[in-house]
Amino acid sequence: MNDAHAAPRSVGVVVVAAGSGTRLGADVPKAFVQVAGRSLLSYAVERVTQVAHLARLVIVVPEGHGTATALGDVAPVPEGTVVVPGGAERTDSVRAGLAEVGEVDIVLIHDAARAFTPVAVFDRVVAAVAAGASGAVPGLPVVDTIKAVDADGTITGTPDRAGLRAVQTPQGFDADVLRAAYASGLSATDDAALVETLGHHVRVVAGDPLAFKVTTPEDLARAERLVASWAASVD
Amino acid sequence: MNDAHAAPRSVGVVVVAAGSGTRLGADVPKAFVQVAGRSLLSYAVERVTQVAHLARLVIVVPEGHGTATALGDVAPVPEGTVVVPGGAERTDSVRAGLAEVGEVDIVLIHDAARAFTPVAVFDRVVAAVAAGASGAVPGLPVVDTIKAVDADGTITGTPDRAGLRAVQTPQGFDADVLRAAYASGLSATDDAALVETLGHHVRVVAGDPLAFKVTTPEDLARAERLVASWAASVD
Repeated sequence: MNDAHAAPRSVGVVVVAAGSGTRLGADVPKAFVQVAGRSLLSYAVERVTQVAHLARLVIVVPEGHGTATALGDVAPVPEGTVVVPGGAERTDSVRAGLAEVGEVDIVLIHDAARAFTPVAVFDRVVAAVAAGASGAVPGLPVVDTIKAVDADGTITGTPDRAGLRAVQTPQGFDADVLRAAYASGLSATDDAALVETLGHHVRVVAGDPLAFKVTTPEDLARAERLVASWAASVD
Repeated sequence: MNDAHAAPRSVGVVVVAAGSGTRLGADVPKAFVQVAGRSLLSYAVERVTQVAHLARLVIVVPEGHGTATALGDVAPVPEGTVVVPGGAERTDSVRAGLAEVGEVDIVLIHDAARAFTPVAVFDRVVAAVAAGASGAVPGLPVVDTIKAVDADGTITGTPDRAGLRAVQTPQGFDADVLRAAYASGLSATDDAALVETLGHHVRVVAGDPLAFKVTTPEDLARAERLVASWAASVD
């Protein structure tokens, strides 16, 4: 085990591409919405394939979305990439992906809707887990003052903003810890919370504004501008 | 007092324009940064002057920023508008503004950097205070999962996102309550927290994405696009 610690550790990445495109007003699943002629999924996968020590990539697509056509413009993908159908809930989709990730040391769960997350963010998450954390997630400082409210909208408290982070993906874990968490039968807001619930330490590492989640039409417009700015800087 | 409750209540608005422009890379105070040829302050004041039952407008400018030139392109302002110098901290600036707001029933404290806050947001805040709340602030649901972290970056908890709101300005209060809060000698993250600390009920009403705070160069670019889109729709 000491050798495994010292050596570069193998990384499996599960990209969850099973969310609906309803809030974007799209008639295709969100990961297949186009930005400058390419799907969000293709941008996400392009970055994942550059992650150091990547041993296995699993893409979870919506149930009923033919796996043969799922990748579409997502190419090239590493040899051995697996495409599996997801389930009704995000948890079911992660579970389906996790079952295919194989013998790796570290698993990252990534949301295809955070399509522009820089490779450096993946590497920071992997480094924190390789250094001994059970889990690590990227996060940004919270800009707005946050209030806790009750069901009637009355403020019940003002948590100290300095102690809050808005978290992103990929969320990374020791593979055994994440498998045990999913085997526990518990459920939680996100994968990190599931692992936290079982008493494991999860760290927050520096996130990146580019790891924003494409959720609304305004987010999609931001994505279009982003890709256009890259194209302009290449020309 | 019952009559005062039943009648439309008089509203005083303190616009705090005393923040620095450092994070915008600007060499003028933030409120005087230009968007499409006009200052952020001018956009903010344009909206404030449309607030129902406005009885008094106080603009707090940076200390040493001549009050004669402070308004610049901010015109027209209501008769009786007062421009006062602020202090070293935001609290000092609000206190200076509050001292000039006069005999009104409800005081709104507004940040000039939230220059595009729609008039309807002001009116919702006023309505909640007029209906009996000691204070009311606009807020939006929190999009990202929020984690509480300790000083080392280890996650200590995942507050339920459904019970969180990211709050904006204007923050509105019963004038007597806010004066008492500022006379208490206590300090807090924001005006609402100060009033909460004294045991008063503060409500969150619906905010608006347009009430975003211009803080970073990306926010400024968003402001430019917003104003350009309005100009295009008028042409």
